[in-house]
Amino acid sequence: MNPYRIDFDLITGFCKSGIVKPVQRRVSNMKTQFLDEKAAQKAIEDGDPILYEFNTLLNEEKHSALAFGTTIIYPGKIGDEYYMTKGHFHTVLDTAEVYYCLSGNGFMMMETPEGEVDIKELHPGEAVYVPGRWAHRSINHGKEPFVMFFVYPADSGHDYGTIETKGYRKLVIEKDGKPIVIDNPNWK
Amino acid sequence: MNPYRIDFDLITGFCKSGIVKPVQRRVSNMKTQFLDEKAAQKAIEDGDPILYEFNTLLNEEKHSALAFGTTIIYPGKIGDEYYMTKGHFHTVLDTAEVYYCLSGNGFMMMETPEGEVDIKELHPGEAVYVPGRWAHRSINHGKEPFVMFFVYPADSGHDYGTIETKGYRKLVIEKDGKPIVIDNPNWK
Repeated sequence: MNPYRIDFDLITGFCKSGIVKPVQRRVSNMKTQFLDEKAAQKAIEDGDPILYEFNTLLNEEKHSALAFGTTIIYPGKIGDEYYMTKGHFHTVLDTAEVYYCLSGNGFMMMETPEGEVDIKELHPGEAVYVPGRWAHRSINHGKEPFVMFFVYPADSGHDYGTIETKGYRKLVIEKDGKPIVIDNPNWK
Repeated sequence: MNPYRIDFDLITGFCKSGIVKPVQRRVSNMKTQFLDEKAAQKAIEDGDPILYEFNTLLNEEKHSALAFGTTIIYPGKIGDEYYMTKGHFHTVLDTAEVYYCLSGNGFMMMETPEGEVDIKELHPGEAVYVPGRWAHRSINHGKEPFVMFFVYPADSGHDYGTIETKGYRKLVIEKDGKPIVIDNPNWK
């Protein structure tokens, strides 16, 4: 395999050259994951907005290779809950990931299968190291798009099903204009 | 291992919180690698300037983990040759690395043990994917510090010795005010 170059705008996260195309996730792609299912249903009927987009270079799916790209989480809420990504474990559970915040701000919510929970707030120029075994979800509680550059081992794989089935143990909602972390009453 | 957060300034590359300290490389650390050894010796006698600095989070040295950080290559020349990094293969030869340019501009010069050579110019917002097997050296032909964020598998290791002994097949020098790529007459 030969080296290659690719552009990701340092503010918007998008690839202007078009080498990689963004993939969109809308409310309809994760409506059962929001606390307020009625608000999610209404948002879908009102135009099904894009919650987030990502631009991923997969490269060779072998462990010595790396996948990388950018993710853009838009500002907004479904009910009192901020726009967020689905969240996932890696299929190869023990593989790590690095996220580096380029613009906007938000949270990285992380949890292990055993129930440890950690949350880190990120601002531009801050990175978070997500060790192996930690599921991770990005949440935008700011007013601008929350944009990060990410890198992970190319054979990590994405296990979305565990989170879709069980939910996250914790959620971030807005109360009195501020983000607070609550237990997820729907967690199984 | 628990998640952690760390800051790397998006322009300077430095960690203001001091969680990671920069490591400096001066002309004296690589004086035999410059084409003009007399100019290198004179630069050492004139104060031995810093060529580059890097800030690396090593994490656990296992293959499922990642190491990451920033590198800052200063503008300048030794004779007609631009300031550059030592350049290295990974000890686990087949491991990849991703570099993302934050500020300044410069080249990533790459070569395989078999003699393939590739060079990519990087500007802010451009990333280069260095596949496994490709040695890589950063070269600053600009007027500002050339700053990149990088990520690689944590057990990759650094083989500096091969480049120190054999040299790089190609060099980048300034001619008539512009960078040109030449064969390295000292390559073994």
